[in-house]
Order: sequence, then structure tokens, then C-alpha cells
Amino acid sequence: MNLEAYLEANEKEHLQQLFNLLRFPSISALSAHKNDVLACAEFIKNHLANLGFENAELLPTKGNPVVYADWLHAPGQPTVLVYGHYDVQPVDPLPLWTTPPFEPEIRDGRIFARGATDDKGQTFLHFKALEALFQTEGKLPVNIKFCIEGEEEIGSAHLPDFLEKNAERFQADVLLISDTGMIAPGRPTICYGLRGLVAFELHVETAKRDLHSGEHGGGVPNAIHALAELIASFHDAEGRITVDGFHDQVTSVTAEELQAFRDLGHDDEAYRTSLGLPALHGEPGFSTLERLWVRPTLEVNGIYGGFQGEGTKTVIPREAHAKLTCRIVPDQTPEHIYQTIERHIEKHTPKGARVTLTRQDSGRPYVTPFHHPAIQWAAKAYEKAYGVEATFTRGGGSIPIVETFDRLLHIPVVLMGFGLPDENMHAPDENFALENFRLGTRTLAYYYQGLPDALK
Amino acid sequence: MNLEAYLEANEKEHLQQLFNLLRFPSISALSAHKNDVLACAEFIKNHLANLGFENAELLPTKGNPVVYADWLHAPGQPTVLVYGHYDVQPVDPLPLWTTPPFEPEIRDGRIFARGATDDKGQTFLHFKALEALFQTEGKLPVNIKFCIEGEEEIGSAHLPDFLEKNAERFQADVLLISDTGMIAPGRPTICYGLRGLVAFELHVETAKRDLHSGEHGGGVPNAIHALAELIASFHDAEGRITVDGFHDQVTSVTAEELQAFRDLGHDDEAYRTSLGLPALHGEPGFSTLERLWVRPTLEVNGIYGGFQGEGTKTVIPREAHAKLTCRIVPDQTPEHIYQTIERHIEKHTPKGARVTLTRQDSGRPYVTPFHHPAIQWAAKAYEKAYGVEATFTRGGGSIPIVETFDRLLHIPVVLMGFGLPDENMHAPDENFALENFRLGTRTLAYYYQGLPDALK
Repeated sequence: MNLEAYLEANEKEHLQQLFNLLRFPSISALSAHKNDVLACAEFIKNHLANLGFENAELLPTKGNPVVYADWLHAPGQPTVLVYGHYDVQPVDPLPLWTTPPFEPEIRDGRIFARGATDDKGQTFLHFKALEALFQTEGKLPVNIKFCIEGEEEIGSAHLPDFLEKNAERFQADVLLISDTGMIAPGRPTICYGLRGLVAFELHVETAKRDLHSGEHGGGVPNAIHALAELIASFHDAEGRITVDGFHDQVTSVTAEELQAFRDLGHDDEAYRTSLGLPALHGEPGFSTLERLWVRPTLEVNGIYGGFQGEGTKTVIPREAHAKLTCRIVPDQTPEHIYQTIERHIEKHTPKGARVTLTRQDSGRPYVTPFHHPAIQWAAKAYEKAYGVEATFTRGGGSIPIVETFDRLLHIPVVLMGFGLPDENMHAPDENFALENFRLGTRTLAYYYQGLPDALK
Repeated sequence: MNLEAYLEANEKEHLQQLFNLLRFPSISALSAHKNDVLACAEFIKNHLANLGFENAELLPTKGNPVVYADWLHAPGQPTVLVYGHYDVQPVDPLPLWTTPPFEPEIRDGRIFARGATDDKGQTFLHFKALEALFQTEGKLPVNIKFCIEGEEEIGSAHLPDFLEKNAERFQADVLLISDTGMIAPGRPTICYGLRGLVAFELHVETAKRDLHSGEHGGGVPNAIHALAELIASFHDAEGRITVDGFHDQVTSVTAEELQAFRDLGHDDEAYRTSLGLPALHGEPGFSTLERLWVRPTLEVNGIYGGFQGEGTKTVIPREAHAKLTCRIVPDQTPEHIYQTIERHIEKHTPKGARVTLTRQDSGRPYVTPFHHPAIQWAAKAYEKAYGVEATFTRGGGSIPIVETFDRLLHIPVVLMGFGLPDENMHAPDENFALENFRLGTRTLAYYYQGLPDALK
């Protein structure tokens, strides 16, 4: 039986296995689900052992365990480290789910469940691709190591430390991750760049107490005005970031990449209407995809100060607060961004106000070595399964752990995603298209099969 | 027993009564306190009836009731209409109160409680001044009518209509209000001008849902940015209001008044340090007192949008909101101010945003007939109680209803205030100085005693 026939013959059984995996409410953000998280890890460990992987175990971290397993019997062949995560996002608001989040169901050619696309479903494709190779060829064409973690949805806080301490065990030639998306149905996509993240808060203070606007209005500074002025000072009227030195480390994008972006034929008008926007917005001189993928941002995520209740309160607020994040691009470093913003604030703090910046989490941007044969080969594997040429894109989001893997292991990171833009990742009615369940498994099997030749 | 001895002998008892009044959380802005507001009105009605006033009743309005009571047994003598309010401001932020806002306590010679100075404490002075006259002279020297309302802190929206329908009942020769302040301890002050108020909310909307800042950051507008830009556009960097036409109706102040302001010898540096400010702030070219009393303002009282919780949420908020008020001066009208701001917003709405302005309550500015004997006599009454000459000032605050009384009743409005600048009106730890509780009651008793002669 060949690979395709095996996958077809066993599809029903494989879907049942995936459903069993999706039934674990492994929500890492909620301590009430601690046992579900552990049970899910245990399930994957046993599943991998049953498929023929060796050394299957739960490796302890300072948080949830990492599922490890390997098969290292392809001497002289490359070793692939497969990363995925078995934890999922919370499910609220629950009433918005058509069917319960942990009772998987197929409707309209899609699997509905929390984790269906992010990331249990996508990780499971690797299990089935490798199972098919085991079953049809009796062995694997490459060496395999798994690193399936349980804290991705809460920021992978303990993984960097764990990886540093276990760097030897995770040595490999290629890191393969399926946790990203395709730009559209039938448009296989390789994400080769991710933006980094720099988070901080701004705290503005003026008087030692809130003041009455009748008694003091006109004589004293207002913390909300000061914060608004500061926020307005971060961009010019057209949307350019005006923080001195902010763009110093931004590397330019190659003409080839820009052409590739243009070739994607992004429809600005369709994008605008899909979000219900009066107009798109952003840095002049750059296309929407450039702005989303290769340009940095500085955004306020939340703001509060003064009276928020019903009606009127004639107060001059003594303090105001904002939460901000920057998406950063190669070769911007969080440290540099923090420093340029701190200098900007020093220079632009309105008279009568005191401003404090509190640093929060940050992660570096990452771009894979685009021309690496391990990445180029991914495009061919997609093409073989989907029958169309694969697209190389960059992504606007951040997977902070990618940069950690790169720094510790110095190996190319291949992001082969199978999600779709409308699969409600992190939202109610999360789902995963059956078509990509089928073609994704094949794509990954082809990838593993041909990788040794590709890397020769 | 003479008046002074009566007040001294009964001070403990009077303070206990005031404490009972201050215990009602009669917050008119919050519908959850509806019953507290009504209970407070009931308490005052009963208190006035017990003192010897007649026709004590709660007069219904379209909002909270007005407490009415009268004593009309001084034929041929003037009738004084006493206005006050029994509603109070909200109490947030609650953690900043040293003791709970509705559990009155005396510390450092001050009564601490929400409403202590604004306006339960000051209104209560009239009750006790008149009680002392009843008890020591067996009758009052003037006729008295009370109008104690319950919606002053939310703009007295229903009072004008109510007064129009009840104009006959409230006919009087003088309107007396204690809801303003003294310029400093031991400096009795008659306020002869008030700023008006124009309140509104701004609502900014962008996308139809909150967006992920990784996926969409750089491509789309951010409602908080748009709101911050709009707020920043209301003033120039030095603090001038930049709304076109905003100052059109502002009348100039006489040289005599300006000289009177200068004669007060306002100490900017002491003012700055008393509020804990890095710097004072406001329109260049005007002294602090001018800015506080005779120049209009435009202030944000509250702002909110996006994520306000702990940690980071990488969201591009679809909406943001601000609450604003203007203090306006003669002859600015609320309608003109709303219109100029609406035009400003139309012109300055950032691309990609929709902005809605919601009008809230408003009130006109007011200047009393300074030379009227009812006002000049107030200065003498202060002098008799405090032993120093009284000061005539204008005030930065608003008692919108003053302008309505003037328009409907055509009588002089006498603003005899007993608050102090540091009594945290509208803020945590509101308080009222015991000294002014004592001297204020006497001042008012003297005022009532001598008014018939003053008006002859």
C-alpha cells in the first residue's frame, strides 16, 4: 500500500484519534485545568510510543511538562526537531460556541473544537505523516525528535530556560513547526519571518490628588491631556512612527521579497470591508502587506484614567495610564526600542506631568534563511500535495520561542502552516478545514521523504 | 441665652446631626444609589419640619425630588430663598480615602466625608443658623423658603423645568446659596461670578471588532490613537484652546476687576506646591486667577478603551471613549460651544475613525449684581463673624442653576461660601473645616438678622 492509500484507508481512524486529543480541555491559562493539561501530555506521550517512537517521556519544566520522543535510526540522515504545543486558549465567551469547545464535531467540511487548528490539529498532522511512513516503508527517512510543549498560549515562559539546560538533547538539523496559517484555501504558505514584540506601560502623574475642574480648571495640568499628547506624539498625522532612532535597526527588504508580496495580489478593499473599517491606516509609502509584515508598529492596546462611570464627573485626573506594544522587525532589538521610546518620552513629556515607562515582556523578530534548502524543499512538498505553487509570506505576529530555538540551536526554522484566516484561532468556534487535514498530512510526509535529498 | 452661646452649647449635638446627614450615600450619578438619594431627601424634610419650618415636603421633579419648606411669618420683611443640594459626587477611587466616605470622622480640625463641604455641610449651616434664631428669639427676622435639590452633581437637568412650573412658590427677594469657597482660611469670600459648564462624551469607533495586533498591526486604524490625536488637537503645546470660534463670545474683564484680582496677591508657587505639581499649566498671557475665573477651559475628565487588566493583551481596540467638560465664561453659551467643538471634530477626525459627540448637561455662566445691598450686607455679616474684611472674588466653578434662578425670579443671588481650597471637593478625603462650620453658622445668622435693615 502506498502512502496516499494508507492515509485514505485510515482517515476515519485518524480523525477519531484527533477527536480524542481535542477532548482534553488543556487550557494552560487556567489553573483549574492543571490536571487536564497533564492528562493531555500523557495522551500524546503514549500515542507517540504506540506509533513506534522511542524514549517517549514527559520532561519536567518549571511549568507544564514537555512531551519528548525520538526515532534516531536513520544514520547519516538529517535530524528534524518537530515543535508543537498541546495547550489551548481559554474558551470564553462560551455562549458564542455553536457546539461545546471540547466536543469535536465535523460540520461543513471543518473540524470544530478548541485546539483544532491551534495547535493540536496541526501538530497531529506530523504524527500521522510519520505513522504513514512507518507503516508503508517500515522506517523513517530522517531522524526525528519531538518537543511538544504545554505553555505556548501563556508565553512559553519556562521553555527558554528548559531548552538551554537540554540543548544537547534537542540538537537537530532542522526545526519544523506547524503553527501558522495559509493565506487562503488552496494557497499553501510558508511563513519565513515573524515580527518581535516589545510591551510596556506608560504612567502619567500630575497633581497629588484629583482636582475639581471648576476650582482648578485652567490653572493646572491634566494627566489625561498629557498622556494623549504623548500618545499623539508617537506618530505623525499620516501614521509614521516619529520616535527618533526607532527605525535605526530596520533592515531593508529585498526587491525579490517585495515582488513576492506584490505577486500575492492583496486586495486592500476586500480587507478593509472585511474588518468594517472606514479606511485602512498606516505608514505612507508602504503597501498593506509590507506594513503588516516588514514594518514595525507602536500601538496602544489599552488606556484608562479619570472618571469612567455613568454621567459626568468634573474632575481633573491626577493620573492616566496606557498599555502599549510594538511589533518589531529585523534587526530591531527590544533593548534599542525601549531606549528610543524612553528618550522620546523624556523629550516629549508635557510640562507639569511626570511620566514613567514600565517594561513588560519582549521577544525578538525572526527571519528564517529563506534560501536554505530545508525551506525551499518545503515549497516543493506543498506543491506536490496541493498541486499549486507554494507562497512565501512573512507574518505580522510573533512566536517568541522561534527566536530562542534559533539562538540556542543555530538551525533553520521551517514554518509549514495549515491554518486558514477564518478558523477563529483564540475565538469561539475554532475549527480546522478537513481539506488541510488531508493535504497537510501528505505535505508533511512528502517533506520528510525528500528532505535527505534536498539537504545533500 | 444669646445666639453665640446657643450655638456653642449645642455644637456636639449639631455635629451629630450633620454626621447623620453625611452618612447617606446620596450619589446622584449612580442609579444604584437611587434609594439613598431619596432617603437623604426624606431626612432633610423631617429635619426642617422638626426645626419649626412649615409645609415641609418632597416636591417631585422628573428626576430626584426637591426638598421644600418655608416659614412665612415675618410680614413686611424680605423673603430669602435658600438653595442647596443634598446629592453628592461619586467616591471612586475608593482606596484613596483615609476613612470610608460615608463614615464621617473628625481629624485635625476637619470633618471628613463625601459631601462634607459640597454641599451637605454648607447647606446644614443655614439649618443651624435659623435654628439658633428660632431658639433664641422665638422667631425669624425674615421669611424663609428652602429649595434643596438632589441633582446638582449631575447638572440639575430637571430643575429649570421644575422652577418654571413652580415660579410662584419660589418667589423671594434674595436667593442665598452656600456652595462656594473662601480663598484661604480666615479669608471670608463672596463669590460674585461663576463659570458655566458644558459636558459631553466622545466615542471613537474603527473596526467592527477588536483586532489582533500581530495579524493587523500596521494596516488598520487604532481607536485609542484616534481619540488621543483628537484630544491633543484641542489645545496647542502651551495650553491655548485651539477650537475655532471657541472664544468668540468671551467678554473682556474690566480694569477694576483685574486690579482686584491682582490685589488678592495670589501666590502661584504656594498654589503649585499645595497641589504637588511639577508646574502650573494653562493659557499664556493670563494670570492664574484670570485662568481660573474668567477664562474658559476644555478638560478631559475620564478616558477608557481597550485592555485595562493585568499584563499584556495584544489587541488593537475598536473603540475608545472620553468624558469632557468645558468651563465657560460670560457671554459664552453652551449651544455655541457644542457647535464649535462639533465642527472641530468634523475637521480633525483622524482617517479611519468615526467619532460621535454625545451632549450632556450644560449651564450658562453668571455674574451677580455686585453693588446690590443684599450682597454688600453679606460682606458685613462675614466681617462680624470672622473679624476681617470679606473679599469679593469670582469663582471657577459652576452652579448652573444660578443662571436659571436669575432668569426666572429676577432677584439678586448671594453666594456666601465656606469651603476651603484644600477640602478635596469631588475627590477622595473630602472635608470641611470645623472653624468654618462654627463661624459659617454665625455669619449666616448675622446675615439673616441684619438683612431687613440692609434692604431698607
